[in-house]
Amino acid sequence: MRKNVPYRVYLSENELPESWYNIRADLKNLSPYLNPQTKKPVAPDEMLAIFPEELIKQEMSDERYIPIPEEVRELYRAFRPSPLCRAHNLEKLLDTPARIYYKYEGNNPSGSHKLNTAIPQAYYNHKAGIKRLATETGAGQWGTALSVATQLFGMECTVYMVKVSSLQKPYRKLLMEAYGAKVHPSPSNLTEAGRAVLSKDPDSMGSLGIAISEAVEDAATHGDTNYALGSVLNHVILHQTIIGLEARKQMEKIDEYPDTVIACCGGGSNFGGIAFPFLYDNLKEGKKTEIIAVEPAACPTLTKGKFAYDYSDVAHLTPIVQMYTLGHGFMPPGIHAGGLRYHGDSALVSQAYHEGLIGARAVHQTDVFKAAIQFAKSELILPAPESSHAIKVAIDEALKCKETGESKSILFCLSGHGNFDLKAYEEFTSGRLEDFEYPDELLEEGFKTLPQV
Amino acid sequence: MRKNVPYRVYLSENELPESWYNIRADLKNLSPYLNPQTKKPVAPDEMLAIFPEELIKQEMSDERYIPIPEEVRELYRAFRPSPLCRAHNLEKLLDTPARIYYKYEGNNPSGSHKLNTAIPQAYYNHKAGIKRLATETGAGQWGTALSVATQLFGMECTVYMVKVSSLQKPYRKLLMEAYGAKVHPSPSNLTEAGRAVLSKDPDSMGSLGIAISEAVEDAATHGDTNYALGSVLNHVILHQTIIGLEARKQMEKIDEYPDTVIACCGGGSNFGGIAFPFLYDNLKEGKKTEIIAVEPAACPTLTKGKFAYDYSDVAHLTPIVQMYTLGHGFMPPGIHAGGLRYHGDSALVSQAYHEGLIGARAVHQTDVFKAAIQFAKSELILPAPESSHAIKVAIDEALKCKETGESKSILFCLSGHGNFDLKAYEEFTSGRLEDFEYPDELLEEGFKTLPQV
Repeated sequence: MRKNVPYRVYLSENELPESWYNIRADLKNLSPYLNPQTKKPVAPDEMLAIFPEELIKQEMSDERYIPIPEEVRELYRAFRPSPLCRAHNLEKLLDTPARIYYKYEGNNPSGSHKLNTAIPQAYYNHKAGIKRLATETGAGQWGTALSVATQLFGMECTVYMVKVSSLQKPYRKLLMEAYGAKVHPSPSNLTEAGRAVLSKDPDSMGSLGIAISEAVEDAATHGDTNYALGSVLNHVILHQTIIGLEARKQMEKIDEYPDTVIACCGGGSNFGGIAFPFLYDNLKEGKKTEIIAVEPAACPTLTKGKFAYDYSDVAHLTPIVQMYTLGHGFMPPGIHAGGLRYHGDSALVSQAYHEGLIGARAVHQTDVFKAAIQFAKSELILPAPESSHAIKVAIDEALKCKETGESKSILFCLSGHGNFDLKAYEEFTSGRLEDFEYPDELLEEGFKTLPQV
Repeated sequence: MRKNVPYRVYLSENELPESWYNIRADLKNLSPYLNPQTKKPVAPDEMLAIFPEELIKQEMSDERYIPIPEEVRELYRAFRPSPLCRAHNLEKLLDTPARIYYKYEGNNPSGSHKLNTAIPQAYYNHKAGIKRLATETGAGQWGTALSVATQLFGMECTVYMVKVSSLQKPYRKLLMEAYGAKVHPSPSNLTEAGRAVLSKDPDSMGSLGIAISEAVEDAATHGDTNYALGSVLNHVILHQTIIGLEARKQMEKIDEYPDTVIACCGGGSNFGGIAFPFLYDNLKEGKKTEIIAVEPAACPTLTKGKFAYDYSDVAHLTPIVQMYTLGHGFMPPGIHAGGLRYHGDSALVSQAYHEGLIGARAVHQTDVFKAAIQFAKSELILPAPESSHAIKVAIDEALKCKETGESKSILFCLSGHGNFDLKAYEEFTSGRLEDFEYPDELLEEGFKTLPQV
């Protein structure tokens, strides 16, 4: 029994950070977003058709700290600060000298970190007079978060849910509907983008790229409606930095500082959220924390993708972004970590990786679920498959410490719970879960879909 | 914005209570359990076939405080102390001068308070050399809790799950299996008790009474196997008093004391758990807290049942207990609060109600879900249907305060989350949810099944 550090470290509500950290201030070589038609840098007002002015400002801002509006902080207080947990029981199970910490973001009805950005996005849109938000969702966590956040401001919410996820996770759909959202499996026949996909492939299981196209089209063609994205964009990652800012304060309270920071990485929002405040310390405060983004071997954007300009969606409605990408035509296999199944990564995460400021690892689905079960049985939280990618690498790192005898401090983001992912767990425990590895021969095909800029 | 009391009040892990409170010390007129065959008081060693000695001692003990073993406290620390929450946002929504607090027990993989007793039950059985525990589950929360707790001690777990619940909640079954349990829909053909029911009614949807019979038979006929019950028994309620003991400390921290304490009541364990420490204060410290047990109008054991000796299970394997009961032959309608669908109440809760020390209310299913949605949308936790019975009455009480202008302090137990109850929510939001009220004409029929003692 290790009594010196408690199982959970809390912050009081007064200690809730007052600003988000904007890493754009410290990543100087970012390439601009390009207009998908003209290939010229996007001007802020080109985005007004689907985003409110305040979020566009945040998207483009180079201010290092951006104040969190008091109305948003007040709503955050219903579920934040989130606990920093010491994984005493997992450490015991692994018999490791490592000190494992995780920031748990699942204690809210979205079941994940996604509510951290859904609330400010709904807030700024509401302030701008918008009545409805349209969005896509993969695993369902983001759609749930936006359903919850919009109703706090009396707004409507339309969710295009990747079809394979809506089949794997019927309860996610019901949860969004309980919070008042309209949910459509994507591709749907409600949009040009959806109909175009269905005419080529009536049985399409969908992808995030398609669902984004549908939601963007919906927003662009309705005056009272804007679009909201749950990851990838700068302002989304900005909002998520509250995770890392809180974690840093919590570690300070127990005289700790991480040697390693780990998070799963799909679009990059929980990763950037926990990692960027520590990356700031590396860049500006002389710290040397190892930062690792974890992705599925089935969708290895950072570890096998190309750093290039690409479309963010299938219908070419969104800006062209410089990022690590497998090509926007990439149709990922139906793995269970729906939130990690995007063809690219956020510009910010991509730039940091390109500059060698962070590392990346790709892991296999069955290894991830093995780690998830170890975690669930020791730490008594059933983790989301996405978050379990981070658990897998945290366990790997802790086992290395066991070999070397080092007592490293390992921090990872437990971005969400797996209560809606039981079918995936069943496949794993019954031995039916398959591993997919993205085949090298498909890489060149995907890269052929990259736009000329 | 009300800043004086935070949204959540925490205790440090050092403040975790060191003893459970045993209300048997203060309820002097309890009737003994009777042997179902001889109708004579049950001797402790008659229960050894299915329970370990330490739990039998606790069942019979008249000591007011029973120490929590350090091993159990250490495992509790993975999820306790649980937060006491101030419902600022619900208060705002209701525009009430009442101060509403809830103790949230859903932050653990059972999703409910059930883990509080599953851990000590597994612990004492493990210490006694037992290799497997058999149990029943209604809503699935208890089965999940015991699945989690047994694996902590390397034990096996067999769960007889009421058939209607296993159909309504397939994810619950998967969750138990993810934690390594074997789950059988009940009535099953694995036991005499199950086969007897199926031979009369092959389509039986089951009941807690039947599932208990199956689990008890399984335990009694296997030497390495004991039985574990998730509610009703004295030792179960004893373990759950950690809820009320923590809540009292947490309210003290903010200079509060409840005028009203509310919990839903099926067998009575979350109710007794939160209420009995406050009932002690009423009995011994001159406090005058109003204590309200809330039950479904479809299963109104306290409000319409008879205070009489009855069997706890359908096959008459368990002791006869003096309790409020609708008759053990009662076949409840398939309401969604599976955890509140038992024909009786615990002896302790029944005695307290019989002596007028606590109150009781019966509420309708649709009103309960309406309250649940109000709560989910304001407090950002999707509540279990069972817990939502307490929410309904807490809201009623808060609205009374709005009328009278009183600023009462209302505490209720939010015993679990509703992540596995989305089908019930869907029925409600789509208008398909039906109300059932237990018909008076059936009461006399149920009472005819009471044993002569």
